[in-house]
Amino acid sequence: MSKLRIGLAGLGRLGQRYAENLARAVPRAELVAVCSPVESERAWARDTLAIPTIHDTFEDMLADPGIDAVVLVTPTSLHASQIEQALDAGKHVFCEKPLSLELEDCRRAAAHAAKASKRAMVGFVRRFDESYRNAFMHIEAGGIGRPFLVYSQTTDLADPTGAFLKFAPTSGGIFLDCSVHDVDLARWLLGRPKAKKVYATGTVAMYPPLEAIKDVDNGIAIVEFEGGQMAMFYASRTQAHGHDTQTDVTGTGGKVSVGRNPRADRVEIADANGVRNSVLPSFYERFAPAFVTQARHFVDAILDDTPFDLTMDDAVEATRIAVALRESQQSGQPVLLA
Amino acid sequence: MSKLRIGLAGLGRLGQRYAENLARAVPRAELVAVCSPVESERAWARDTLAIPTIHDTFEDMLADPGIDAVVLVTPTSLHASQIEQALDAGKHVFCEKPLSLELEDCRRAAAHAAKASKRAMVGFVRRFDESYRNAFMHIEAGGIGRPFLVYSQTTDLADPTGAFLKFAPTSGGIFLDCSVHDVDLARWLLGRPKAKKVYATGTVAMYPPLEAIKDVDNGIAIVEFEGGQMAMFYASRTQAHGHDTQTDVTGTGGKVSVGRNPRADRVEIADANGVRNSVLPSFYERFAPAFVTQARHFVDAILDDTPFDLTMDDAVEATRIAVALRESQQSGQPVLLA
Amino acid sequence: MSKLRIGLAGLGRLGQRYAENLARAVPRAELVAVCSPVESERAWARDTLAIPTIHDTFEDMLADPGIDAVVLVTPTSLHASQIEQALDAGKHVFCEKPLSLELEDCRRAAAHAAKASKRAMVGFVRRFDESYRNAFMHIEAGGIGRPFLVYSQTTDLADPTGAFLKFAPTSGGIFLDCSVHDVDLARWLLGRPKAKKVYATGTVAMYPPLEAIKDVDNGIAIVEFEGGQMAMFYASRTQAHGHDTQTDVTGTGGKVSVGRNPRADRVEIADANGVRNSVLPSFYERFAPAFVTQARHFVDAILDDTPFDLTMDDAVEATRIAVALRESQQSGQPVLLA
Amino acid sequence: MSKLRIGLAGLGRLGQRYAENLARAVPRAELVAVCSPVESERAWARDTLAIPTIHDTFEDMLADPGIDAVVLVTPTSLHASQIEQALDAGKHVFCEKPLSLELEDCRRAAAHAAKASKRAMVGFVRRFDESYRNAFMHIEAGGIGRPFLVYSQTTDLADPTGAFLKFAPTSGGIFLDCSVHDVDLARWLLGRPKAKKVYATGTVAMYPPLEAIKDVDNGIAIVEFEGGQMAMFYASRTQAHGHDTQTDVTGTGGKVSVGRNPRADRVEIADANGVRNSVLPSFYERFAPAFVTQARHFVDAILDDTPFDLTMDDAVEATRIAVALRESQQSGQPVLLA
Ligand SMILES: NC(=O)c1ccc[n+]([C@@H]2O[C@H](COP(=O)([O-])OP(=O)(O)OC[C@H]3O[C@@H](n4cnc5c(N)ncnc54)[C@H](O)[C@@H]3O)[C@@H](O)[C@H]2O)c1
Ligand SMILES: NC(=O)c1ccc[n+]([C@@H]2O[C@H](COP(=O)([O-])OP(=O)(O)OC[C@H]3O[C@@H](n4cnc5c(N)ncnc54)[C@H](O)[C@@H]3O)[C@@H](O)[C@H]2O)c1
Ligand SMILES: NC(=O)c1ccc[n+]([C@@H]2O[C@H](COP(=O)([O-])OP(=O)(O)OC[C@H]3O[C@@H](n4cnc5c(N)ncnc54)[C@H](O)[C@@H]3O)[C@@H](O)[C@H]2O)c1
Ligand SMILES: NC(=O)c1ccc[n+]([C@@H]2O[C@H](COP(=O)([O-])OP(=O)(O)OC[C@H]3O[C@@H](n4cnc5c(N)ncnc54)[C@H](O)[C@@H]3O)[C@@H](O)[C@H]2O)c1
Repeated sequence: MSKLRIGLAGLGRLGQRYAENLARAVPRAELVAVCSPVESERAWARDTLAIPTIHDTFEDMLADPGIDAVVLVTPTSLHASQIEQALDAGKHVFCEKPLSLELEDCRRAAAHAAKASKRAMVGFVRRFDESYRNAFMHIEAGGIGRPFLVYSQTTDLADPTGAFLKFAPTSGGIFLDCSVHDVDLARWLLGRPKAKKVYATGTVAMYPPLEAIKDVDNGIAIVEFEGGQMAMFYASRTQAHGHDTQTDVTGTGGKVSVGRNPRADRVEIADANGVRNSVLPSFYERFAPAFVTQARHFVDAILDDTPFDLTMDDAVEATRIAVALRESQQSGQPVLLA
Repeated sequence: MSKLRIGLAGLGRLGQRYAENLARAVPRAELVAVCSPVESERAWARDTLAIPTIHDTFEDMLADPGIDAVVLVTPTSLHASQIEQALDAGKHVFCEKPLSLELEDCRRAAAHAAKASKRAMVGFVRRFDESYRNAFMHIEAGGIGRPFLVYSQTTDLADPTGAFLKFAPTSGGIFLDCSVHDVDLARWLLGRPKAKKVYATGTVAMYPPLEAIKDVDNGIAIVEFEGGQMAMFYASRTQAHGHDTQTDVTGTGGKVSVGRNPRADRVEIADANGVRNSVLPSFYERFAPAFVTQARHFVDAILDDTPFDLTMDDAVEATRIAVALRESQQSGQPVLLA
Repeated sequence: MSKLRIGLAGLGRLGQRYAENLARAVPRAELVAVCSPVESERAWARDTLAIPTIHDTFEDMLADPGIDAVVLVTPTSLHASQIEQALDAGKHVFCEKPLSLELEDCRRAAAHAAKASKRAMVGFVRRFDESYRNAFMHIEAGGIGRPFLVYSQTTDLADPTGAFLKFAPTSGGIFLDCSVHDVDLARWLLGRPKAKKVYATGTVAMYPPLEAIKDVDNGIAIVEFEGGQMAMFYASRTQAHGHDTQTDVTGTGGKVSVGRNPRADRVEIADANGVRNSVLPSFYERFAPAFVTQARHFVDAILDDTPFDLTMDDAVEATRIAVALRESQQSGQPVLLA
Repeated sequence: MSKLRIGLAGLGRLGQRYAENLARAVPRAELVAVCSPVESERAWARDTLAIPTIHDTFEDMLADPGIDAVVLVTPTSLHASQIEQALDAGKHVFCEKPLSLELEDCRRAAAHAAKASKRAMVGFVRRFDESYRNAFMHIEAGGIGRPFLVYSQTTDLADPTGAFLKFAPTSGGIFLDCSVHDVDLARWLLGRPKAKKVYATGTVAMYPPLEAIKDVDNGIAIVEFEGGQMAMFYASRTQAHGHDTQTDVTGTGGKVSVGRNPRADRVEIADANGVRNSVLPSFYERFAPAFVTQARHFVDAILDDTPFDLTMDDAVEATRIAVALRESQQSGQPVLLA
């Protein structure tokens, strides 16, 4: 098998970027088909990509024997069942995070994958970011001694139009939508400890409609792991300056940080306002190269039959912790994890 | 009254710095007496300072009619009662933080001060730091919209000799000893909201003897205030790089941060190790000028009969919240504040 | 013409990167042929790229009617004549900087291009770097008032093996090899003023063999332009920390800087050595995306018949100034430019 | 001699700061007298300082036998002769930079001092700045290998009122007024090499009246030292952002920089304008503590009979080079230094 023939499901905001990456930036992949239930998205694919086949339904695409693997950038609510369908159809599958908003679905899909003859991976793009990888390697090499604390935040630029409010009710809440990245990072950077207790709270600083759905636009949380490791998280949808993803890992011998200044570029301006730099507007400008690296990792792992950097268990665990964070935020009580 | 005649109690690590500041750097103050129960400390005062009177006991010093005000840099356990004694002796009094480790003592001393004819102030030096003041003024001026979140940390350089372990049992625990600064800052920077709930936890990363006294060397915490404001704290005694005090305040219109890089000076070195700067070793290098500003503020407020920037209620509240943090850390449960 | 069919000449250090970029990262380009006199380089092309045709000589490649445009990443000494050959063969041509080390060659090639029916462009990759473009736009928008001073440096990591010494004799000297980038940037960022006088000097800090060829491994220079604009340059082959390209442009209303910290990534490490970041090792890590943008610009300009951002006159002028810098460094006298 | 009894001459912009420093911040000094020809300045001294004696003339003050040493913060044109007068009157003398604008005066004063029984020192305050000292020690310790290049700038905030234009004609020009600091720093940080050639130029970006006196408001320069060491300088009176003094020293093993971001404090603001910090407004905010350290150094050296960090020859050399820079700027030719 020289190239991995891929069918892509979902051509929304992120899906279109996947399409372009798979079509051009992943040499060992061949994007042979896409599917979307939405005609305008299919039209975009026809106009933009040179792809042989464009399907209306996921099921049609799965039936195509010329496809080796499926990439899912569909709404989160479909992830778990589409993974199962794809595996049953004999396709390898890559799925955008999170695996599911429901822990039961996560477990079922993971169990399904464990028994399947094809392989499944859920992506957490930050693990493929060059800076996060360099931080991870620094920790692995003993550069900070024994790591025991993670502070990690995922904070987005405020959107004055409140467009995200439409999406909010199905997002799973801010901890499942945003902090799930930080949860996965913390587990990865701390050496996969088992979470035992979480506490979370939050506030509605800008978008009152969130109150009705018990969500917040700014959430903070503490996670305690076995062995005394700990994490603090901050997620926000209301930043004035831009997308600001940052992470500190503290150990007995030092600290390693990623993204302390969310600078957009290498420019610095000095004038009557002081010295300043611009800020990244969104997660995509921040992680665009990591999405490519992640796609290459998936393709290489399948073609070379090498392990994924991320297991299905990692994906289950991220949802398990994030669900507990939401529960704690809503109940006001710490939540114990068995 | 042209100069404020001051008697200083306590000539320990911090007290000696106070002595030098009061003797030289506060033009409107005259350091006329000091007291310490320790002969070697009195000898230091005799040799170093040109002070008329050196007392063995606090009581002796209070009896001196030539003293207008007393400055307390004594062990925390003595603060509350010495404040009361000083007021009763007809002296104004400045006391190092914290007011007390016991909430009852705090309340009693504050009530005492409220009825006294002389004035009492508890110092929280960070409020007098130029950078924190500039941040405060930026917030006051509306620069970040409505502030709703504080992240603040007080973290000290690890001491391989573990010398602080001797002091630990009477320190009140890491939240009362270190986070009390962050608690006070958060209240100040958020506009003095009322705390309603706290959650804290921690770990022993480096000093196992702390376990026996239910203390930790790294503590993290969440405080929820009325009106949806929130704070996250981190305190540590085990940093590899130095003293790292930093604070972010996030609002609906921006964020203001103090101390994101704990740089020791304006030097940057570029060599085979990359680009680097040195780090502040301890709180004193960081806040030395603020201790002077704080002393001047106290002296000016007394001489000019103007208000203190810090009230006794601020000092009570800081202890109240810090005590609750310790309780939460030890019980594993959130603590409600009436 | 839907895609631009390109033949690439030169598969050396930089040429191989061009080959990969043209093969994969420039959607409107099709890399249809390469040529190199070196068998091992042709073998690399056979193994790595899926290219129909691999030629031994430039002349053979030019004879191919299936090629619309030629990209030259050949030794500088060949640039001018290969540009002329390519234009005569009816090919558009993109050529790596510098146009030539000899001013006469530059002028002849530029004159040749002016009369040709096809188009020629010399690349200066920094103009296509996102940060430099953002700085340029900030200046264009009046963000720094009237710009009057550029400081710009191109400094490379020291190579303990001294490998570059082999290449040094044909490099044209440090000002033609390195500062030519800064010269072009200065002209661009200052609005294309006419240079009227230069002064340069330098030292041999690490590579004594350079003395025999009157070259230096660290050179500094001043350029004066008409209208009172000025520039200072620094070029070095001996940096201990890495590749450090940076530029400040000062105007009457502010200053804009690019690259003040040559950080390799978004990681910051805090430990007993202070707070540090890693540094970029070479120009390629710094400008990799800009090489792609530059290639796309060339392809778009040809396909859409739109102007190049860089004219042949820009390329002539860069060499003219750089040659004068070398002359000044060698003579010890300022050099006037007519 | 327990305290050094000082008479201060000059109570202008900088002199008043000296008065306050000597009165309060230098424990081993006693400010016993001041003198100024200007009544309003004497009135200021009467009101602000608790000083026994206030003289109308320098000569009267010199006649006072109760004075051990004289500090000169008078106009530069008076420095050389006042140093001689003070020495002749049997006083030690500290003099603000520069020694003189005329090389002959410098030489005469230095020769006078060499033969005098009392000691004279000319201050260059940056040598007493903590960051510059740390940089110096890093170089001394071999931290950057052999230093061979200095880039140093002294740039002031633009003054829209042009007030400095009154002072400009007697300032000696921008190189003598501003770059003289960078010249002294370069000599110090490079190990006191002998300058052999300079080249300078400049432009009038904002203050046209300077043209009539052949001065510029932005000057750049190159200095070549024996042994291949070099320096580049930039001086400006027109910065939009504030006072920006910075220095890089490059060696064979690394680079050390001082002041790369002229930050006013430890505050960082993130909002719709990006991430920014404030900037120092003037040299005094930048170097206030260094003026105190410098005064202490002078006092200690006299009282303890230890060497000055700065010799009279250093002061002569700084003027010699700065005069040559001005000559080069005005003639357009390099200037050789014997
Ligand atoms: N890693 C990250 O940082 C990151 C960022 C954004 C989104 N995401 C994840 O990506 C996924 C998609 O997010 P989005 O923002 O692109 O959402 P979106 O709503 O813009 O796009 C979803 C797409 O799925 C398509 N779709 C719906 N039903 C389908 C079906 N049955 N078969 C095939 N396609 C179907 C829609 O037509 C649409 O194109 C989500 O799971 C989200 O969590 C991850
Ligand atoms: N603001 C800050 O950042 C900060 C930092 C360090 C300490 N502190 C506070 O300063 C206080 C002192 O701390 P320290 O580290 O200097 O402690 P220390 O133990 O070094 O000094 C305490 C001093 O009090 C003296 N003393 C004891 N009993 C006395 C009495 N009855 N009368 C007079 N003097 C008496 C001791 O002899 C000693 O000189 C504590 O309350 C501490 O919380 C504040
Ligand atoms: N923009 C930049 O930052 C930058 C950086 C490095 C190099 N460059 C420029 O790129 C050019 C190449 O530099 P390099 O470092 O890759 O050099 P190199 O010596 O590694 O490569 C030169 C290549 O040209 C080939 N060649 C020689 N004669 C040829 C001919 N007649 N026809 C076709 N190919 C021929 C060689 O086989 C070799 O593959 C130079 O002009 C250099 O100035 C620019
Ligand atoms: N180190 C630095 O960074 C720095 C900065 C500013 C000024 N300076 C130097 O400080 C000196 C003073 O500068 P300034 O800006 O304060 O000038 P200024 O003009 O404000 O003050 C000069 C003072 O000298 C007094 N004076 C004049 N003739 C006198 C005399 N015969 N005897 C006694 N006093 C006399 C004047 O009344 C005035 O008080 C200059 O030499 C200047 O180069 C150094």
